[in-house]
Amino acid sequence: MPRRTIAPTRDGAVEIIDQTALPDRFVQRRLDNLAAVAEAITTMRVRGAPLIGVAAAYGLAFGLRDDPSDSGLEHARGVLLATRPTAVNLRWALDTLAAGVRSLAPSARASSAFEAAGRLAEEDVAVCRAIGRHGAELLGPLVPRGRPLSVMTHCNAGWLATVDWGTALAPVYTMHEEGAALHVWVSETRPRSQGRLTAWELAQHGVPFTYIVDSAAGHLLQRGGVDVVLVGTDRTMKSGDVTNKIGTYLKALAAREAGVPFYVAAPSSSIDWSDADWSTVPIEERASDEVTSDSGVRVANPAFDVTPARLVTRLVTERGVCAASSDGLATLFPERFA
Amino acid sequence: MPRRTIAPTRDGAVEIIDQTALPDRFVQRRLDNLAAVAEAITTMRVRGAPLIGVAAAYGLAFGLRDDPSDSGLEHARGVLLATRPTAVNLRWALDTLAAGVRSLAPSARASSAFEAAGRLAEEDVAVCRAIGRHGAELLGPLVPRGRPLSVMTHCNAGWLATVDWGTALAPVYTMHEEGAALHVWVSETRPRSQGRLTAWELAQHGVPFTYIVDSAAGHLLQRGGVDVVLVGTDRTMKSGDVTNKIGTYLKALAAREAGVPFYVAAPSSSIDWSDADWSTVPIEERASDEVTSDSGVRVANPAFDVTPARLVTRLVTERGVCAASSDGLATLFPERFA
Repeated sequence: MPRRTIAPTRDGAVEIIDQTALPDRFVQRRLDNLAAVAEAITTMRVRGAPLIGVAAAYGLAFGLRDDPSDSGLEHARGVLLATRPTAVNLRWALDTLAAGVRSLAPSARASSAFEAAGRLAEEDVAVCRAIGRHGAELLGPLVPRGRPLSVMTHCNAGWLATVDWGTALAPVYTMHEEGAALHVWVSETRPRSQGRLTAWELAQHGVPFTYIVDSAAGHLLQRGGVDVVLVGTDRTMKSGDVTNKIGTYLKALAAREAGVPFYVAAPSSSIDWSDADWSTVPIEERASDEVTSDSGVRVANPAFDVTPARLVTRLVTERGVCAASSDGLATLFPERFA
Repeated sequence: MPRRTIAPTRDGAVEIIDQTALPDRFVQRRLDNLAAVAEAITTMRVRGAPLIGVAAAYGLAFGLRDDPSDSGLEHARGVLLATRPTAVNLRWALDTLAAGVRSLAPSARASSAFEAAGRLAEEDVAVCRAIGRHGAELLGPLVPRGRPLSVMTHCNAGWLATVDWGTALAPVYTMHEEGAALHVWVSETRPRSQGRLTAWELAQHGVPFTYIVDSAAGHLLQRGGVDVVLVGTDRTMKSGDVTNKIGTYLKALAAREAGVPFYVAAPSSSIDWSDADWSTVPIEERASDEVTSDSGVRVANPAFDVTPARLVTRLVTERGVCAASSDGLATLFPERFA
């Protein structure tokens, strides 16, 4: 695996890969204050639910460096939470850090938060590694004789979306390293074309892939060109309903129609453990200029959609594979249902 | 309605609207020989199943001008048929013209074909007008109280795709002229973004619309933002299976899931009256540079997909509305089933 998507520097900043420059240019960028982190998340220099969780954690640490008081903590938390409303990892990371530093004296908070952010980053790598192994076990029996396993994904849920390894692509990398023959259908993912990031990643690792427009997914599934669909998630409800990048729901419908399994790689940091209903998940509406440069045209640009649990064959978490339901999640995360 | 998409000139050429320049620039282009027509169809200067049928008819007339022999006729037919394999209108128009001129002396063929092409163009206008009226009757009862009827379409099946009026948009224009409140969801339609043509058309006519990426269709249907889906077709089988622009199938799946009617505007010139199965319809694979400028990336670019008849609520033809089935079509076109 290449360098990490976010890494602390020796002098207390972080260095990120600026994903808005990829795949054309590989640019790293130094962030060392709250506003810079918030900007990087909003403009999608860092993106992907797990990665924005870790980035926000560092952002909170930087905020505490400027103002370690309780109100400074709340301010930083508010700024970061407002960057992107859908992914639950952001809230999870901020809540985790805030809980850890509130009992500390203000003077000890910033350095403690910075260290805690680093631990979250390491934890994310371990979680993705585990998802890779569990996913590889799930996909292994699907590998057909005489041809590669054909995996369709959506958006980018590779190592660029996490600290390393990725969620949906972690099983692909794991199997590829073990010598399995794989082929990935990479969907463009308009309007931001994160499929280009996935293509770039896969090319770096030598995993064969074919790039398609989002609309082609139904045809390919119908004609038998896909063995399994595997995507990430920005927020999966306790019920198993999956919020993910806009267009995921259409792939799930077409997978069901074709009798193809639809798997979701869901680290527990992406699971909304509240009892809220999927219809209450805030769906981020992004700027119209992502869709068209014609400012005279009225645009709707919802960034996510919800795939109902009944269309999800299995969830792949760091603790193993389960049904997309409360019962399924309760077998792996009993403490959340106590 | 503005000028027509294709019109004969006084000196025996035709003038087209070059749709590759739209919506940025309105450019007309003169075509007066077989090669120029074939080029215009292949590169999508003229596009839309009905319009390429009429354009091909003029192309055949130009070919006969150069070589009115039987072999000249077959050559021109072959060149034009090879331009785009999926839309059946091309074959229909060429067969109609060829049958009309074969019994004539070679010296009479070119002028007869040119006149016949003009009649096909007029017939297309009448057919689209009739589809507009039948479709408006079908959609009328769906108009909700207190808000506009929300119609989702795909690609461009407006007047730019025909000689005038359009197929799927003909009912929209008809209802709009009659004072009904309508709103259209315009889907980008990657990779060629024909949604921009639809947006341009609707803006010209003052029909309110919102532009979306293709992936957003499922979310909007799921959340209740769409009353009806209405699309065109490049080839509808006798069984009611509908071949149309890539992405249509995904919209049909999402419409069924949402309980929203899915209508297809199908002039009889777009119906394949053979007994062939949908799986035998040639699906045009277009150039990879339509999808990405990165020539190092392997691309699949199927231009059409097939929506099975069971997902199609009704077909709207020039003779009226029917079920998407042999039985349905037989009620309107009994002579085809004799």
